[in-house]
Amino acid sequence: MRADARDNRERILTAAEEVFGRTPGASTDEVAKRAGVGIATVFRHFPTKVELLEAVLTQRLERLRDRARELAGSADPGRAFYDFFGQVVAEAASKLAIADALGAAGTAVGDEARQAGEGMRQAFGELLDRAQDSGAVRKDAAFPETYALLIGTARGATAVGLEPTVRDRLLALVYDGLRPRP
Amino acid sequence: MRADARDNRERILTAAEEVFGRTPGASTDEVAKRAGVGIATVFRHFPTKVELLEAVLTQRLERLRDRARELAGSADPGRAFYDFFGQVVAEAASKLAIADALGAAGTAVGDEARQAGEGMRQAFGELLDRAQDSGAVRKDAAFPETYALLIGTARGATAVGLEPTVRDRLLALVYDGLRPRP
Repeated sequence: MRADARDNRERILTAAEEVFGRTPGASTDEVAKRAGVGIATVFRHFPTKVELLEAVLTQRLERLRDRARELAGSADPGRAFYDFFGQVVAEAASKLAIADALGAAGTAVGDEARQAGEGMRQAFGELLDRAQDSGAVRKDAAFPETYALLIGTARGATAVGLEPTVRDRLLALVYDGLRPRP
Repeated sequence: MRADARDNRERILTAAEEVFGRTPGASTDEVAKRAGVGIATVFRHFPTKVELLEAVLTQRLERLRDRARELAGSADPGRAFYDFFGQVVAEAASKLAIADALGAAGTAVGDEARQAGEGMRQAFGELLDRAQDSGAVRKDAAFPETYALLIGTARGATAVGLEPTVRDRLLALVYDGLRPRP
């Protein structure tokens, strides 16, 4: 891909994330306007809206995966785990679509998004393992229910449109459930 | 409404709950078949699919509200609270649509569903108050985050299609966060 084509693709994806993050049912035309490119350019990169949505989803999952991997090398595994958890939930609250993206990971989406989702789950699993080894997360919290709790908290925060203070209190309840009993 | 018309309405609603609970995008025709009535009968009671979906949503919310009210009179307020919480989550896991019904409560739905949703939230708030007074739920868990936790846990369980054993472990994490710290 030529450099200017790559720039356009980048710009369209950034615009799509903003537009669909606010209004999942928005049109491709709105994305083109926001990106400052013609509608034909959008369709050249993403022939259908589904392909565009899928690229946005993939990008989000990859970003979350990269963040989790980065945090996995942290000197404070407990903090790394809860930071990641909180970031996922905070983003979900401000951007309606991230929770759906999360929920869609591993379901009937395209290969790229599925791989990114799988990578994200694996990286989250590593964060969980390290946090448990360090004593910051109870050892009997296995991956399936902890991941369900992550998705659920993100969705709960999104569904009721929580203010940041309420979101923080929601997270405090969830974190207390994850911490070893004193 | 005549008795046979009321019976038909009842039958259509029960069928719609089953059909849409499995496949939210199912057609009204499938509902008619399942109910054993003609499609014209369905349209006489519910002129549009939206009206039918709304009636199903209202029925579910009313049922949850009634269950919460019933439990509010229980001699064991802690058990009543956690029982209701677990029932909402268990139903959400088996019936995909209940979480959406919950999320939709209080948003741009019709008056009847909104009232039923409001009644459900109020009854849940009473269960929470009593459980806090009895010492079964921590006193600093206010209604907004506790309700978000209910919705979120239901959605988390539904989104990842949890088996009952994993769902129970998810609930154990959530309940430990809600209990007063020892």
